[in-house]
Amino acid sequence: MADRKRILYVQTSGIDTPMRLYSPIVLATVAVSMGIDATVYFLGTGITVVKTGEADKIQMGDFPRLSDVMKRATDAGVKFLVCDQSSQLMGLSRGDYIEGVEVVGAATLNDLSLDADAILSF
Amino acid sequence: MADRKRILYVQTSGIDTPMRLYSPIVLATVAVSMGIDATVYFLGTGITVVKTGEADKIQMGDFPRLSDVMKRATDAGVKFLVCDQSSQLMGLSRGDYIEGVEVVGAATLNDLSLDADAILSF
Amino acid sequence: MADRKRILYVQTSGIDTPMRLYSPIVLATVAVSMGIDATVYFLGTGITVVKTGEADKIQMGDFPRLSDVMKRATDAGVKFLVCDQSSQLMGLSRGDYIEGVEVVGAATLNDLSLDADAILSF
Repeated sequence: MADRKRILYVQTSGIDTPMRLYSPIVLATVAVSMGIDATVYFLGTGITVVKTGEADKIQMGDFPRLSDVMKRATDAGVKFLVCDQSSQLMGLSRGDYIEGVEVVGAATLNDLSLDADAILSF
Repeated sequence: MADRKRILYVQTSGIDTPMRLYSPIVLATVAVSMGIDATVYFLGTGITVVKTGEADKIQMGDFPRLSDVMKRATDAGVKFLVCDQSSQLMGLSRGDYIEGVEVVGAATLNDLSLDADAILSF
Repeated sequence: MADRKRILYVQTSGIDTPMRLYSPIVLATVAVSMGIDATVYFLGTGITVVKTGEADKIQMGDFPRLSDVMKRATDAGVKFLVCDQSSQLMGLSRGDYIEGVEVVGAATLNDLSLDADAILSF
């Protein structure tokens, strides 16, 4: 496990820009299939994506609903984290998020970013 | 060549936000002049930037047209890649893009991001 | 100092998207408290954030005004840089920015990105 690569996907865009939401999830799912550890960190307005019910409403082009793509991602082993400070800023708390999402602080994101072999922001 | 540095510029913003489009192209062109390998990867709505004819319509401030800045970039050696999955999502295909753009998949972006010495997202 | 880690926060979003503006400043301030060197680089429309007076007008949720959060960041040791080419594009110059902001070129951002241990874009 020591030499497993890690990619951190940072989602700063929210449900008001649905076209920006598929990419990190798709990339993270593909990463896991490549033997790469993949984490998606939601912060800023990006936290609206993991608010219960919101991803169910989003469906673009011929793609499945975003919530289905997200479910497939977490089933494959993609980790979803959500920013504590952003939650405070937007008045959301743990109970507002879909199952399996972990709320962590800004210090954790800084640590994760230093530990990652690559970071892609959306 | 072995120690040539590589910067990956990821363009996730499209023609609806013209002010976000010059930066990666300008930075990549400057990078090449610094002896750095520079690739711009277009994904999500960012793929609209390399759709034939679109960059011709964009011109901001006293800067040349975006298409001219892009032409100068590729002439200098900047590589343009476009995301296959995003193309599917938006109903675009190889024939819709400007010359010199290569369509590659999500796995390639993950690999490129791990190989890059720095990644800047726009 | 040799093994001090460095995180580069790149702000490409401007005052028209206030919800995107707190994150890099908060993260950079937390980074400094963790013993990490933190720089926020403003480019594209992001440069509007450091235009004199603009951050005074922005206040989200229960958070302090953005200008206060930014003041706390620079007092803690966070470095603010602004892109020269973006300034030209938007017709802004040194005199238009808040105190303590340094105007640097695209080559500097490329160098900073290669020197950084992590880069987060907003």
